Amino acid sequence: QIQTVTLIPGDGIGPEISTAVMKIFEAAKAPIQWEERNVTAIKGPGGRWMIPPEAKESMDKSKIGLKGPLKTPIAAGHPSMNLLLRKTFDLYANVRPCVSIEGYKTPYTDVDLVTIRENTEGEYSGIEHLIVDGVVQSIKLITEEASRRIAEYAFEYARNNQRASVTAVHKANIMRMSDGLFLRKCREVAENYKDVKFTEMYLDTVCLNMVQDPSQFDVLVMPNLYGDILSDLCAGLIGGLGVTPSGNIGANGVAIFESVHGTAPDIAGKDLANPTALLLSAVMMLRHMGLHGHANKIETACFDTIREKKVLTKDLGGNSKCSEFTADICRRVQDMD
Amino acid sequence: QIQTVTLIPGDGIGPEISTAVMKIFEAAKAPIQWEERNVTAIKGPGGRWMIPPEAKESMDKSKIGLKGPLKTPIAAGHPSMNLLLRKTFDLYANVRPCVSIEGYKTPYTDVDLVTIRENTEGEYSGIEHLIVDGVVQSIKLITEEASRRIAEYAFEYARNNQRASVTAVHKANIMRMSDGLFLRKCREVAENYKDVKFTEMYLDTVCLNMVQDPSQFDVLVMPNLYGDILSDLCAGLIGGLGVTPSGNIGANGVAIFESVHGTAPDIAGKDLANPTALLLSAVMMLRHMGLHGHANKIETACFDTIREKKVLTKDLGGNSKCSEFTADICRRVQDMD
Ligand SMILES: CC(C)[C@H](C(=O)O)[C@@H](O)C(=O)O
Ligand SMILES: CC(C)[C@H](C(=O)O)[C@@H](O)C(=O)O
Repeated sequence: QIQTVTLIPGDGIGPEISTAVMKIFEAAKAPIQWEERNVTAIKGPGGRWMIPPEAKESMDKSKIGLKGPLKTPIAAGHPSMNLLLRKTFDLYANVRPCVSIEGYKTPYTDVDLVTIRENTEGEYSGIEHLIVDGVVQSIKLITEEASRRIAEYAFEYARNNQRASVTAVHKANIMRMSDGLFLRKCREVAENYKDVKFTEMYLDTVCLNMVQDPSQFDVLVMPNLYGDILSDLCAGLIGGLGVTPSGNIGANGVAIFESVHGTAPDIAGKDLANPTALLLSAVMMLRHMGLHGHANKIETACFDTIREKKVLTKDLGGNSKCSEFTADICRRVQDMD
Repeated sequence: QIQTVTLIPGDGIGPEISTAVMKIFEAAKAPIQWEERNVTAIKGPGGRWMIPPEAKESMDKSKIGLKGPLKTPIAAGHPSMNLLLRKTFDLYANVRPCVSIEGYKTPYTDVDLVTIRENTEGEYSGIEHLIVDGVVQSIKLITEEASRRIAEYAFEYARNNQRASVTAVHKANIMRMSDGLFLRKCREVAENYKDVKFTEMYLDTVCLNMVQDPSQFDVLVMPNLYGDILSDLCAGLIGGLGVTPSGNIGANGVAIFESVHGTAPDIAGKDLANPTALLLSAVMMLRHMGLHGHANKIETACFDTIREKKVLTKDLGGNSKCSEFTADICRRVQDMD
């Protein structure tokens, strides 16, 4: 039975890499029907920025989105579309698996971890004040509810993905009340998941240990800003945003999967882009939809192409075009039948 | 002419590594006289925690301190001594040079950067509120004055240490007012240092780029928490806190140099500790005092000992005792005469 997915190709290289993913999904006979939507923000009633109704309606129906990169808005007061999407659909968990890719050399070979970032509050509350001239406050907001929710997501994720441990990342030695609350909720939730090991670590210590030996980490759960930082750091360990998938998960199955790299305007439209991050995000999406067979097939084909090093895009160290890289993955997917 | 330095040996391995530094300073004939002080916090009038008057008076006179690790206080309400020291002496800049050490293998060989951290405000304001049950706010405080002061410090540092560029690290896309203010001050100060290149980068992007290619960075300046994170991350790149020096700088020449590793209670008193971080911090101190000749001599001796790999403590991959490692450095220092 065919399921609909809202496709937001995005800007710059977005359309090319979206086409690549669609081709590979077709080759894999993934039972997906795409509904393409644009999400350039518009001004709604009362002057509030919102995503266009056609995109919102499509997502409300399909519940699942796949999104390419969006260019950073330059109009004053225009919100980041990424933030607006997270907010509109209450996508409270940002999930980024970081796994070393065989054949793509980085200083690390044994990364296999997942960062789970609280995606709705914390330092991203947007609440700021000018107290007096030259003195500004930004408010970090931590709630019991959002902390429990993300902790529960992390432990469920660990259990369902055969992951042995969850580490809560915090600075409760400094932000005793806010990070303290976050940590307390993690501890409470941990009580209900005795099959998953629970540890706690300061953010600074995590960063230090991460670059010394990332293999010690498994699932990491943390407030918003720490997740922003750590997820990028971990992406760096395996080769950057061009090969790192990402999923934003909400309640009741709603989710948007996305490549988190930029729009690369310099190479846009030249058939030079690397579709790996969007493709691996689409693989996460297939798993989220329960389509594990198709997910495994596509993922294997993609990693095989990279490991063999014959047909690689420039950023991966090769000379091939996006379409050639895509065709190589398609061929492998078809050969698996 | 002999100058006095307040020595705070600290807890755990603190006394051993302090002894090592004193021995090496003696071998190098550094014109330093140590005034040893303890800084266990005491309760002052009105129940406020303060550092003991003898330590305060010594620092007020000498202006320069060298400090080993302090154990984390466990009494409820007891402040971190590190934070209390920064506060008491208004040590507004935390400076950590991170340079790859030849002979000590890590995944990176070309790290040569300095993190400069605003040390007095930001996320460390200590202002937190319970709004309603289950909702907590922590306040990040950014002031024009502290931002300008740290930016000026960074540019002065770059100029005086032949460093080509300063990068301001921020999340002004999210914390538009607070990080925005910090960034604006950096830009303004940059105008007065046309000989130093100025760039800006998001914290998440810095983390990603840092683990991919640290050689692209030079001097980095940032608000408090970002500095906490990045300085530890960078320490990890060159081998950890056991080999990374740190200085906390205030106005009018006041400064405390310190090793930022822990007290290592498991090996305390066993002559197994590695004094490198405290020694390199003491070398920073000598430079701060204008004693460049002694600084260079000691630093060279320390790096020679590490490069030769014959006499190394366990954490550095050897089998030698702290006293043997120290003696090897002393011998080299004396041979230079
Ligand atoms: C685009 C930006 C607002 C965003 C963030 O800071 O969260 C990005 O860095 C991310 O990680 O998705
Ligand atoms: C000990 C702790 C309070 C401190 C901090 O968070 O600043 C430490 O991590 C540091 O970097 O000096």
